[in-house]
Amino acid sequence: MIQVTVWNEFRHEKKNEDVRKLYPEGIHGAIAEFLKGADFSVKTATLDEEEHGLTEEVVAKTDVLIWWGHIAHEEVSDEIVARVHQRVLEGMGLIVLHSGHFSKIFKKLMGTSCDLKWREDGKHCRIWNVNPSHPIVEGIGERIELEQEEMYGEHFDIPTPDELIFVSWYPGGEVFRSGCTFSRGNGKIFYFQPGHETYGSYYNEKVQKVICNAVNWVAPKDHLYPTYGHFEALEKEEKQ
Amino acid sequence: MIQVTVWNEFRHEKKNEDVRKLYPEGIHGAIAEFLKGADFSVKTATLDEEEHGLTEEVVAKTDVLIWWGHIAHEEVSDEIVARVHQRVLEGMGLIVLHSGHFSKIFKKLMGTSCDLKWREDGKHCRIWNVNPSHPIVEGIGERIELEQEEMYGEHFDIPTPDELIFVSWYPGGEVFRSGCTFSRGNGKIFYFQPGHETYGSYYNEKVQKVICNAVNWVAPKDHLYPTYGHFEALEKEEKQ
Amino acid sequence: MIQVTVWNEFRHEKKNEDVRKLYPEGIHGAIAEFLKGADFSVKTATLDEEEHGLTEEVVAKTDVLIWWGHIAHEEVSDEIVARVHQRVLEGMGLIVLHSGHFSKIFKKLMGTSCDLKWREDGKHCRIWNVNPSHPIVEGIGERIELEQEEMYGEHFDIPTPDELIFVSWYPGGEVFRSGCTFSRGNGKIFYFQPGHETYGSYYNEKVQKVICNAVNWVAPKDHLYPTYGHFEALEKEEKQ
Amino acid sequence: MIQVTVWNEFRHEKKNEDVRKLYPEGIHGAIAEFLKGADFSVKTATLDEEEHGLTEEVVAKTDVLIWWGHIAHEEVSDEIVARVHQRVLEGMGLIVLHSGHFSKIFKKLMGTSCDLKWREDGKHCRIWNVNPSHPIVEGIGERIELEQEEMYGEHFDIPTPDELIFVSWYPGGEVFRSGCTFSRGNGKIFYFQPGHETYGSYYNEKVQKVICNAVNWVAPKDHLYPTYGHFEALEKEEKQ
Repeated sequence: MIQVTVWNEFRHEKKNEDVRKLYPEGIHGAIAEFLKGADFSVKTATLDEEEHGLTEEVVAKTDVLIWWGHIAHEEVSDEIVARVHQRVLEGMGLIVLHSGHFSKIFKKLMGTSCDLKWREDGKHCRIWNVNPSHPIVEGIGERIELEQEEMYGEHFDIPTPDELIFVSWYPGGEVFRSGCTFSRGNGKIFYFQPGHETYGSYYNEKVQKVICNAVNWVAPKDHLYPTYGHFEALEKEEKQ
Repeated sequence: MIQVTVWNEFRHEKKNEDVRKLYPEGIHGAIAEFLKGADFSVKTATLDEEEHGLTEEVVAKTDVLIWWGHIAHEEVSDEIVARVHQRVLEGMGLIVLHSGHFSKIFKKLMGTSCDLKWREDGKHCRIWNVNPSHPIVEGIGERIELEQEEMYGEHFDIPTPDELIFVSWYPGGEVFRSGCTFSRGNGKIFYFQPGHETYGSYYNEKVQKVICNAVNWVAPKDHLYPTYGHFEALEKEEKQ
Repeated sequence: MIQVTVWNEFRHEKKNEDVRKLYPEGIHGAIAEFLKGADFSVKTATLDEEEHGLTEEVVAKTDVLIWWGHIAHEEVSDEIVARVHQRVLEGMGLIVLHSGHFSKIFKKLMGTSCDLKWREDGKHCRIWNVNPSHPIVEGIGERIELEQEEMYGEHFDIPTPDELIFVSWYPGGEVFRSGCTFSRGNGKIFYFQPGHETYGSYYNEKVQKVICNAVNWVAPKDHLYPTYGHFEALEKEEKQ
Repeated sequence: MIQVTVWNEFRHEKKNEDVRKLYPEGIHGAIAEFLKGADFSVKTATLDEEEHGLTEEVVAKTDVLIWWGHIAHEEVSDEIVARVHQRVLEGMGLIVLHSGHFSKIFKKLMGTSCDLKWREDGKHCRIWNVNPSHPIVEGIGERIELEQEEMYGEHFDIPTPDELIFVSWYPGGEVFRSGCTFSRGNGKIFYFQPGHETYGSYYNEKVQKVICNAVNWVAPKDHLYPTYGHFEALEKEEKQ
């Protein structure tokens, strides 16, 4: 059974009553809830726990880490980021949600600013599936309609994704590469745009389905980690 | 259960005793054998059967088609090629093996000449895994060693693969992109280099494992086929 | 000096007075006009000329072919398509515009249906630059605004582009990968969406700039064509 | 005229007489020499200069930075790495040579370990061109033969390159993706394998030609840097 750890900075929910009402168990709680229903083994971890809840032991046992952060990216310790980074390179899957685009771990894995345009206007958005045979879009159909979502607009400063899965449309006139895969070392990564804290995107069934599909897709398989360093020749020395 | 059809032109085995001894049930028979052991539902089809064994019914029921051809590519009818092509676009997986690089169906899907360098010298080769977290290399480790394989060398005239999985090394001094994925329409495609008719590569356990992994990877999931053509606006007309 | 041939089926202009008024010298004439101003050597060719204006001699001397077609794709002879295809593989650049997505040559190079959603509604569109350091977007800035353009919507059934350059936004709610590069053999290809026959997109300065940039980008450089076929070992035989 | 800065850690040349004899003006000197002959404006900078020779002013005026380092990667200050990283995102081209794969700047841009297999055995290598129409291989032909080069072998732990240009063959039995392009922000990056300090690869004319071609390819064009952050809707508010 795939072991998922849902990480949330869990600050909006404490400070803002609207967010608390929308996500009474926290954003991590809402995500954990539907993942459990999809037959994954799920734990949560949050910023204010010791080591942000991401101890060596937790990270070592995690197959897939889901990351939601927004206003406290800078409070995440570099040591924990390095630990998570190393574990991704070793094969742990990572799903970065919404404002997690600016998290230390995503920026460290991407090597770019990960900047974008944004606007909170309470309007709808439409997430188009541009990769119809990808495992992450199984059961999704040609698009996802969200009644309210924050606008994220291009240019999105990421490296060329390995695979472009979704492109979003916003009524204000913008587009966004809203579902992208990457690999780094042995680890697979999926970035997915929905999830502003005052809108209910994580209650949307298609959003849930995408995240469940992505957990399966980023989860490590039975792979050997490559060997590196000095290497003896495989071919025998030719006679002189 | 995934329905696999193994297609072979089945001519070398009839004309050449060495090939017949090596593959007494035909190359298709040898491939079908290990696929059955891996819990797939497997049928075979060959060039000299009616409609090359690829009737509308057979093609419609096939999830994954495996293609081996070499000396009789031109005898494959354009009508059957068009049928297989259409079915790939609709979602059927396709695995093209070895000299199938020059098959009509592969060239039609690629849009290029699919040409390469080659040499039959009875020497060994080494297939390096350059994509260690890909599902197709699960259980393979860092390389596959084959005691004998035909040399295929760069430049291999294919479009940029979606994913590069294997790069081969040959003692004569050549390299080759020997494992490549592509998608066309809703269909996934995997090209894999081993399989010269007078060497026993399809008895190699790692080659078998790669092909089994690839069957799972190219097999269609529960996806909706996109809709095309005239499309009414989703956004309501703005008031004038 | 780069030799450009602008090919147009040149039928709308003959049948439809609105198109004729908009493009009195034909779409090919309008495109040739701004290309000449950009210091390219430019010729035109059209469907109803002998060999569609694409004789062996013309094709052999063309560095970059620009293709506009819409209602008469089926009238283009397979022989000429094969000639152009071969020349692209040998290194000729190809720019496919707008409804050329359904041309025989583009489908042959892509290997897919090249289908899409569409709607002629006389509305505006916005073409977002998602690849800001690419030579094709030099001088373009972050977007192109067109007052009127036909809607082309996802899913666009093309292989994964080598590079995604533009994504378009339409007021009806759709998005489209509207600028894409591909390579096939030694040839470079650029697909660009604008250019419905009743709107004036080829008079837009940024559209013109993109096409000029693209001519430079797809034009063949001083490259050797690879050698294929039987190949002697480069490494000396090891002594036994 | 493109302004190139060639950076070298310049330590081997001071410590090892063989290296000093081979590169009496330093590796940076040898590279600068052939770049000047190719009509670039060239400066050099080395580790032991103040700010490693990469002051704000130098970096601001550099169009293309070439990086060679090996035994002193850890001595490069994080502040200078951050400065160079920021400038790459803004558009400066970067060419990373040989053992620079382990430099702080390359690892920061890649997000991976950048690890590989290696062996110094004084043997030859063969660098195959797998992207024959790319500007970086103009004039190179199908391969580069080097009499001596350090073996670098797969797996090379880098993100999927935007473009794979070269694959190397080594007599010991290994292969390596030895020429790769990436983009990060507005900056283009080229990694190129040759250049062990005790072999004379930078005197090889084809290696020189590749580096000159790459300087042209990574050099920034006249591009606007994208705007990021809060963004007002482009579409007018619909009437209620």
